[in-house]
Amino acid sequence: MNRITSLLGIKYPIIQGGMVWCSGWKLASAVSNHGGLGLLGAGSMHPDTLLEHINKMKSATQKPWGVNVPLLYPKIDEIIDLIIKNDVKIVFTSAGNPAKYTSVLKSHGITVVHVIANTKFAKKCEEACVDAIVAEGFEAGGHNGNEETTTFTLIPTIKKATSLPLIAAGGISTGESMLAAMVLGADGVQIGSRFAISDESSAHINFKNLVISLGDGDTKLALKKIGAVRLIKNQFFTKVNTLEHEGASVEQLKELLGKGRCKKGIFEGDLDEGELEIGQVASIINSIESVETIMNKVLASFNIAKEKLNSPPFCF
Amino acid sequence: MNRITSLLGIKYPIIQGGMVWCSGWKLASAVSNHGGLGLLGAGSMHPDTLLEHINKMKSATQKPWGVNVPLLYPKIDEIIDLIIKNDVKIVFTSAGNPAKYTSVLKSHGITVVHVIANTKFAKKCEEACVDAIVAEGFEAGGHNGNEETTTFTLIPTIKKATSLPLIAAGGISTGESMLAAMVLGADGVQIGSRFAISDESSAHINFKNLVISLGDGDTKLALKKIGAVRLIKNQFFTKVNTLEHEGASVEQLKELLGKGRCKKGIFEGDLDEGELEIGQVASIINSIESVETIMNKVLASFNIAKEKLNSPPFCF
Repeated sequence: MNRITSLLGIKYPIIQGGMVWCSGWKLASAVSNHGGLGLLGAGSMHPDTLLEHINKMKSATQKPWGVNVPLLYPKIDEIIDLIIKNDVKIVFTSAGNPAKYTSVLKSHGITVVHVIANTKFAKKCEEACVDAIVAEGFEAGGHNGNEETTTFTLIPTIKKATSLPLIAAGGISTGESMLAAMVLGADGVQIGSRFAISDESSAHINFKNLVISLGDGDTKLALKKIGAVRLIKNQFFTKVNTLEHEGASVEQLKELLGKGRCKKGIFEGDLDEGELEIGQVASIINSIESVETIMNKVLASFNIAKEKLNSPPFCF
Repeated sequence: MNRITSLLGIKYPIIQGGMVWCSGWKLASAVSNHGGLGLLGAGSMHPDTLLEHINKMKSATQKPWGVNVPLLYPKIDEIIDLIIKNDVKIVFTSAGNPAKYTSVLKSHGITVVHVIANTKFAKKCEEACVDAIVAEGFEAGGHNGNEETTTFTLIPTIKKATSLPLIAAGGISTGESMLAAMVLGADGVQIGSRFAISDESSAHINFKNLVISLGDGDTKLALKKIGAVRLIKNQFFTKVNTLEHEGASVEQLKELLGKGRCKKGIFEGDLDEGELEIGQVASIINSIESVETIMNKVLASFNIAKEKLNSPPFCF
């Protein structure tokens, strides 16, 4: 029992990151049913699709769950409205200013958690009265902060800057990394990549198989001029990288990116032309497993790692 | 007592990183005298200077200490020869292939530790029969790997790839981060930035004062085309960044860099035109302290952090 488990009403301080084309009701309900917090990833859903997933969540679990909403979403007002009307209890907001929607969500009794990657936004979260923050490091998959601060430095830095309950994200996939994040000052962790390729994730099997084959150095931050994003180094990445190396403009990069590349890659399995978002930690994820297995393994290894610290190699 | 303390004959598994213009005999002997391993940073020393520092080390401490040698050093053969002739017992090599000098050093009874940033070089270290490795994450100051793998993901990845004794570097400055690195699989840690601005460091006071004022996002990786290096965002960095944004060539970058910029910045205190190397973790370092204070604080906070894990917020 700690500040995150009591705030969110969950058994274990493990949040499944809301991820485009991965985290629909199947994944989110499985995580919630196994004692973590499942999040629907609204970033890749039309409002009608989100409504469908919210309704399915309500049948699939009686445990707490939430919705992750990137605030840059084009139909953001419609999404916020839909969330309020359909009695969602927990919202994780990201990619934007927490000042804009926190008060309206909280006025409807919704718990609000905001994702940040620097001290400046941690302070904005305090001012906006969010209930907790996710501090996401440079190693995380998908959209990423400009400061490139890693989990190892970000967590203690944010811990120093704010007393808000703190969830660490980026690089966390095991019980050892969960414990390490908590040693650095986090109250809980958000796991993305490992859940992104779980049995219950809606990602394409081609994508899942590729992820488990990756080693270190197989992802990199790209598209910094239009919004940094961590991608697998596939054909599409190579094209981006070549352009960037030559000093390409925002317009050139936007033209190459086009529309729908994440869906093409993650959901439809086009490994060459798709935009393949995953975290650096893919290098230690080697199998596609069920949420139940993942939760059990993470918790078991967390406790083993903690126990080990009482043995001589850790005693000085 | 663990694999690193017994290999190096030290009391605590804390290594002071060998750093250009910071780690002469004063810093290194202080660290060794307080139970860690001090390293002379040969990277910024002419052979004559290195010899002088080796001789001073021998008077200043009876405890184990070593020399850090970047293998790209122009007078590398002379340096290796000097190290062997002067009975140095421990050598940390970096920035190069461990195959080249490990066997000659080991044939003279020298313990060899090599610094790596990816699995490929961890494997090369095994083949070269080095005694231990330092795995250095993206958040580290100064020269940095191309893969940009962070400490949080690098340590478990390298731990999986090799059974060599493993020292974590990058982002470590406190007892909490030391414990976190060891939870992730390290046997010991290398601390750079915090020692770089200690009382005993030979860095200029202007540099030390600047470092303690930094927040998150105030350093960034630059000069990737000629060898990635993490720098403070000063005037020189801004010039580099502008050129890089426009797709500058290797030649253009080399011309801008010129010679002696690290010395100018770190040792002579020119904060505008110097090349100011420091790690991301500068964001949580807020005071200039003696090595004794640093060692005491790190060890105390290590033990407090470990003790805390037995309390309810960490029990599930």
